[in-house]
Amino acid sequence: MSFAAQGTHKIDRSAFRFAERMNGLKASAIREILKVTEMPDVISFAGGLPAPELFPVEQFARACQEVLTEDGPAALQYSVTEGYLPLRQWVSDYLHETNHIECTPDQVLIISGSQQGLDLIGKVLLDPGDLVIIENPAYLGAIQAFDAYQARYVNVGTDDEGILTDDLARVLAQAKKLPKLLYLVPNFQNPSGITLSLPRRKQVIAICAEHGIPIFEDDPYGRLRYSGDHLPSITALASGLNCIYMSTVSKTIAPGMRVAWLVMQDRALYEKVVPAKQAADLHTSSLTQRAVYAYARRPGGVEAHVKTMLPVYARRRDVMLKSLEEFMPEGCSWTRPQGGLFLWARMPDSVDTQELLALAARLKVAFVPGAPFWVNCDVRNTMRLNFSNASDDMIVEGIRRLGDVVEAYMAGAR
Amino acid sequence: MSFAAQGTHKIDRSAFRFAERMNGLKASAIREILKVTEMPDVISFAGGLPAPELFPVEQFARACQEVLTEDGPAALQYSVTEGYLPLRQWVSDYLHETNHIECTPDQVLIISGSQQGLDLIGKVLLDPGDLVIIENPAYLGAIQAFDAYQARYVNVGTDDEGILTDDLARVLAQAKKLPKLLYLVPNFQNPSGITLSLPRRKQVIAICAEHGIPIFEDDPYGRLRYSGDHLPSITALASGLNCIYMSTVSKTIAPGMRVAWLVMQDRALYEKVVPAKQAADLHTSSLTQRAVYAYARRPGGVEAHVKTMLPVYARRRDVMLKSLEEFMPEGCSWTRPQGGLFLWARMPDSVDTQELLALAARLKVAFVPGAPFWVNCDVRNTMRLNFSNASDDMIVEGIRRLGDVVEAYMAGAR
Repeated sequence: MSFAAQGTHKIDRSAFRFAERMNGLKASAIREILKVTEMPDVISFAGGLPAPELFPVEQFARACQEVLTEDGPAALQYSVTEGYLPLRQWVSDYLHETNHIECTPDQVLIISGSQQGLDLIGKVLLDPGDLVIIENPAYLGAIQAFDAYQARYVNVGTDDEGILTDDLARVLAQAKKLPKLLYLVPNFQNPSGITLSLPRRKQVIAICAEHGIPIFEDDPYGRLRYSGDHLPSITALASGLNCIYMSTVSKTIAPGMRVAWLVMQDRALYEKVVPAKQAADLHTSSLTQRAVYAYARRPGGVEAHVKTMLPVYARRRDVMLKSLEEFMPEGCSWTRPQGGLFLWARMPDSVDTQELLALAARLKVAFVPGAPFWVNCDVRNTMRLNFSNASDDMIVEGIRRLGDVVEAYMAGAR
Repeated sequence: MSFAAQGTHKIDRSAFRFAERMNGLKASAIREILKVTEMPDVISFAGGLPAPELFPVEQFARACQEVLTEDGPAALQYSVTEGYLPLRQWVSDYLHETNHIECTPDQVLIISGSQQGLDLIGKVLLDPGDLVIIENPAYLGAIQAFDAYQARYVNVGTDDEGILTDDLARVLAQAKKLPKLLYLVPNFQNPSGITLSLPRRKQVIAICAEHGIPIFEDDPYGRLRYSGDHLPSITALASGLNCIYMSTVSKTIAPGMRVAWLVMQDRALYEKVVPAKQAADLHTSSLTQRAVYAYARRPGGVEAHVKTMLPVYARRRDVMLKSLEEFMPEGCSWTRPQGGLFLWARMPDSVDTQELLALAARLKVAFVPGAPFWVNCDVRNTMRLNFSNASDDMIVEGIRRLGDVVEAYMAGAR
């Protein structure tokens, strides 16, 4: 399959959709999905949840006890906005080891989950009408965060190697107003599962350097690679450029703590984002920051736990790919992600996946219709499928039902 | 003493100070304070920290263990934006018992500390240039949060009974543009320590009802009353009005968890604030929400712990009041709070407390200069003193030093 040449449009002011309208649309889409997933016996590929049975509950409970025993009053007291210093030191060591990113603790800001990083960067960098370049389809949480600051989007299409760099160069050459930011998820993107290839990473860096556009590299899934070789992060490759790098423990340990980090190489930006965070929530929980640190500093640390997750997720991905092959009618295609939590499927042109969801609810299977992920264009026939949060058997059964749903829809049942 | 008639100004557009300038000013003021408080051997009355030696560390550690043992995977997983339902139920029961506030769990939104509530209400209600009525002096965290949305302030002065309702009525009668919100801290206000009297509460409600202005009642300190009778909250008194009520566990259990709540009686507002929170941080930590609930549901709950804190804080307040009487030179005055964490002192007119702080640093005592708390007017001779975070002996010694500092300053040493 290929998504090439889909999703890039010329910068056309009339095509920009503003915050209120988009939020309205998306909130209703999300409510619709939730209604379906909350029904009993539904097999849901709609969420983006890590597998809870893999959470390191006992070790994390020990980490909490350790923190409260050794450092209780500090773990329950107010703390500094920048974050717990040993955790910031651990983050910079971890990013060096796993991603060759060179940063010091005073470039690291601990945030209350990646969503907060999107919000803070939007708050500090975006004025109403400012342009953000995004991949198309793009991560919905980023759109929601930037929408709140009335950003407009310059959407650049993607293919199996990620963002189309020729289109990116062309769009920027034609732009009358310089975008404030390029936002992308280079590894196992949400929603597409696609990974930006190494040549494209270098091209993205060269193009952004030429136009002086900061790159916001959002990397929640980077450690969850099931096949292929690890690719260097944009931030590590773009040594001369001021990148913003973001990651989280939500996918490697557990999301319930709401602990993530922003790395900002631009000192002036860091010094604007810290007071923005202070005004937003003072600081991230002293307890969860310390518990994450206590967990991460154990022998083996986070990576030892990730190693136990990889084969489970890899198998689920494979089961889903095999089931799609087996059960989906002709004319459907999908991505084959090398990691992460999602794959992205395209139905025949005549299928509207939002309508399909209503039919799927009757057969008790759920997915996320793709339309809200597309920016500045109306694409109805895509869907996002999550493979991390269901057992092998459930995946087989769910995709079997989904195949039936698509066939019934195409036969005229709506 | 009386602060009557200080701090109210006519609505004068030229006097409004916008976000960037104010933030700049305040960030530098805060940095200055931090520099002093970080010096070794400094006795600091500058912070707003609860006494860490009173934190219920052991019970809270047990609550964490209980949660992770009984409900580990859910405590580590993503959860809903509105907050953990049993905690929202507990909040509505607690508000009913302690404050006669009638609300249902679906009017309660769990937030990541009160600061987030200020940010979210600002984000949803305030467009650039919108007016917010505030007490003068006002809580700095609220100003910081609303500044981010380029609010302008209608400041109404205060006296020993709180906001001057005659001034409030006059200012509103003269207003050409209707303010979006009245924000106030009715109990033991930060920074002044003043409590809004019952007649004034009723007048505030009547005036706001007349003009259709929503009241945002921020009540972090309400349970920390050391003398006088508990006063009904504005939200409980204003049964017909759509109030926003906010409180937190930061002062009654511990602030390090970042768990607080907004109660919104206006359904339409609630449904705007929830997606704003979703875009800001998805949800508050599943773990800390559950740990707070597990702690709060024990026999006696939060109130039993509060009862153990009250005599300690009451004594510290009394020691500070007595020390001020003993050591401060003539011409100084201060409030006599019935609860909370702060009192507010006024030096003779010739004293600039920002300058005084430099001198105080040499004598190793710290406070917060009052100027940043004053909105739309330039008042230099006030300071905020925190009495919750130092032992009795430290308070006596610190106020003795402060008296020396003021005397030295007035004698010409700057």
